[in-house]
Amino acid sequence: MLTVDQSIEAFLDAHKDARLESYKELLRIPSISTLPEHRPDIERAAQWIVDELSRIGIEHARTFDTAGGHPLVYGDWLHAEGSPTILVYCHYDVQPVDPIELWETAPFDPFVKDGRMVGRGSADDKGQLHMHLKAAEAMLATRGTLPVNLKFLFEGEEEHSSVGLEDWLRANAELLAADAIVISDTGFFEGNVPALTTSLRGMMYAQIDVSGPPVDLHSGGFGGAVQNPANALARIITELKSASGSVLVPGFYDDVVPPTKEERFEISCLPFDEGDFHRQTGVPELVAGEPGFSLLECMGVRPTLDVNGIWGGFTGEGSKTIIPAHAHAKVSCRLVPDQDGEKIFEQLRDFVAQVAPRGVKVEVQNLGTAKSLRMDANLPVSKAAAKALEATFGKAPVAIRSGGSIPVAAMFDEVLGLPITMLGFTNPDDNAHAPNETMVLLNYETGLRTITRLWDDLGRMSPLEARMGGTTA
Amino acid sequence: MLTVDQSIEAFLDAHKDARLESYKELLRIPSISTLPEHRPDIERAAQWIVDELSRIGIEHARTFDTAGGHPLVYGDWLHAEGSPTILVYCHYDVQPVDPIELWETAPFDPFVKDGRMVGRGSADDKGQLHMHLKAAEAMLATRGTLPVNLKFLFEGEEEHSSVGLEDWLRANAELLAADAIVISDTGFFEGNVPALTTSLRGMMYAQIDVSGPPVDLHSGGFGGAVQNPANALARIITELKSASGSVLVPGFYDDVVPPTKEERFEISCLPFDEGDFHRQTGVPELVAGEPGFSLLECMGVRPTLDVNGIWGGFTGEGSKTIIPAHAHAKVSCRLVPDQDGEKIFEQLRDFVAQVAPRGVKVEVQNLGTAKSLRMDANLPVSKAAAKALEATFGKAPVAIRSGGSIPVAAMFDEVLGLPITMLGFTNPDDNAHAPNETMVLLNYETGLRTITRLWDDLGRMSPLEARMGGTTA
Repeated sequence: MLTVDQSIEAFLDAHKDARLESYKELLRIPSISTLPEHRPDIERAAQWIVDELSRIGIEHARTFDTAGGHPLVYGDWLHAEGSPTILVYCHYDVQPVDPIELWETAPFDPFVKDGRMVGRGSADDKGQLHMHLKAAEAMLATRGTLPVNLKFLFEGEEEHSSVGLEDWLRANAELLAADAIVISDTGFFEGNVPALTTSLRGMMYAQIDVSGPPVDLHSGGFGGAVQNPANALARIITELKSASGSVLVPGFYDDVVPPTKEERFEISCLPFDEGDFHRQTGVPELVAGEPGFSLLECMGVRPTLDVNGIWGGFTGEGSKTIIPAHAHAKVSCRLVPDQDGEKIFEQLRDFVAQVAPRGVKVEVQNLGTAKSLRMDANLPVSKAAAKALEATFGKAPVAIRSGGSIPVAAMFDEVLGLPITMLGFTNPDDNAHAPNETMVLLNYETGLRTITRLWDDLGRMSPLEARMGGTTA
Repeated sequence: MLTVDQSIEAFLDAHKDARLESYKELLRIPSISTLPEHRPDIERAAQWIVDELSRIGIEHARTFDTAGGHPLVYGDWLHAEGSPTILVYCHYDVQPVDPIELWETAPFDPFVKDGRMVGRGSADDKGQLHMHLKAAEAMLATRGTLPVNLKFLFEGEEEHSSVGLEDWLRANAELLAADAIVISDTGFFEGNVPALTTSLRGMMYAQIDVSGPPVDLHSGGFGGAVQNPANALARIITELKSASGSVLVPGFYDDVVPPTKEERFEISCLPFDEGDFHRQTGVPELVAGEPGFSLLECMGVRPTLDVNGIWGGFTGEGSKTIIPAHAHAKVSCRLVPDQDGEKIFEQLRDFVAQVAPRGVKVEVQNLGTAKSLRMDANLPVSKAAAKALEATFGKAPVAIRSGGSIPVAAMFDEVLGLPITMLGFTNPDDNAHAPNETMVLLNYETGLRTITRLWDDLGRMSPLEARMGGTTA
């Protein structure tokens, strides 16, 4: 199938081995943004990308400091006069690796196995960032020019709640002026079916801290006279949801836009193999999060509340008879339009205070929020992306409402007001955020052809057409 | 106050500095029985005691292996013909030190501060074991003889649920043949008031393991479709108790012997300063474990259920958006007469299975049980102990129903059927099982005089009188 420019195809073919080596080189840098001890690795990864952008001919490559402390990488190529300007976003930071004991190999020692690149960040999101670098390299190397103006923005704290990003975007909106935005941090549908993401869930991430005595107490000497912080925490968590899964925080569902009949029909038509999905999760039984909604609805158009971590007291081998001094839980909500993370945090904080048992001190910290977002699949840019996917993968993409959250998408929407296309290439079984993360190399290789094809198609569009649907159009 | 033999008093006076040095030497050995990496320290502590027993003139000093893997130390002196034989029990293993960051000094680098010995095990129970060694040494050194026959049994896994003890006791009942038992592993009442413990709570220690997916799942991609093991664990724990603190496990209270009106009156007469006790705990508010019972009743004559530790998922700094693969809790119950730990475990296990949410696998492990025990304060041996305490501390001891559990006491009762006296010298604010454990040196110094006084008094008793109240009498 001849889907992209022949000279680009020849270049990509010729440089396949070097490309995979370069991909591995990037994956070897353990750029975990949530762990302070990896700060030097974050800086090393940022510099690696700056060097690579410069090497392939992207201009003004540099880092910017943000209030979050993890540098943003920026670079541009703006010589396609009269053509649209596209802002490309990916992130180079990765999730922590724990539980490390479940990795079959070292997370930052990537290798190819069964047609996949294995390693932390191979899919989320260094792999996709690397595809953009290599697509631009191929076009510049073979033609000396690009069909569109490109501005690259690569974040270093996406997995750390993008703490410094929004302020930076507001302060640098002029630098980022463009006609449309392409974000590559999503993926295909179950079964590796090409897809375009048309909505993203938002997020509210909180920590509940329950404290009782200043030190652990002997449960024999004090059991029966003091409130146990771990029991109290369990009760607080339990109060947050009904047994059937509905969130009981007052006001939680107030701003949820219910899916329309048409949307529910579309979701029901997706090629979802529940048996396959069940096997992929490995759980004893799938459990829809809310009564009255299908699994896909619960994952895409309904909000959730999950404990992401819980700890307190004695957790070693054997037994220790104490009343723990304190207990903690990380609790996050996936939010849907039009829930507001800050408002949800306040509702949670107030409700926790209300249901907290007496005899302990309870605090709730806001660890970050992200807005949810809906995108119009009928905008010219989105249609071009769909066409490029179909041309390269041989299959029209399905529209998916993602359960994930990409804070930058909502921030771009609010700060820049441009049309956004979520062009992602990972496979749902890639183990993003989990041990043994992978990227299907067929998606990686075909996908970078999709990108060159999309730049060529957008290059034939006027800036005004590319900008259609954005609030600043 | 001349309370003990003058030559013994002179010996104790003359050797005070050396005694404290020896006490510290024993405390320096980190004999933590629940952590396998401290096995060599356990062995070192056992050998230290064997050597010390031999040095002071106790015979047949040796260790015995148990199925639990932590050696028992035994030694005897049996030349007081016609006098009672007393079996003395203490334990030389100690609790783990976590949370280590709350210790003001190194736990195994003991030192004297404000009239207290500071260090792990100073009170529970190496300090009291050391008092027995030094009391026997003083008597043998000054008189060349003891007024009673003594058999010392020092356990190495009391803090590890005494896993191997009961089998060993049954197999070695003949070796332990005696007329009465003195256990030194308890303490004084609040305010450092001399006391004799007349009942001990039993124990059931379990671990609840909840597992869902084999690996952590991305909460964006899967949240809403799978049961969250941490949320499920919180729900299970919450179901175990009512909001007001009653245990909801069916059958839990069936065998509880309610305190009589007389017992409740006696408890209400104890010199309990609730304000002092509250300050000692450091909690925001004291909370009686069950409606309708006083704090002291909830701590002494009513059973409890506490989470001792809880863990699962991401517990690092920052945020990680996962559904944890598994979550765990250590849960223990303090039991009162006539609750049976094994029966309570089965009730708990069955109830957990009943209330476990669907979509997760739940297992409950039995980590150990201990029987509760009541002791008669009117037996000759107990009366002698009370007299020795009054003679040395200048105050008649109060009778306390301890909230703690000493598995060996119930085992002795069942296997040997001898009268038991709980002669303990710690102060309730000694931080047993917590950071910054201490022993009041006045209690230590006066207490070893109490012990010599008790041996002298028991030496004037016939074996039959000492044995009164035991089922084998």
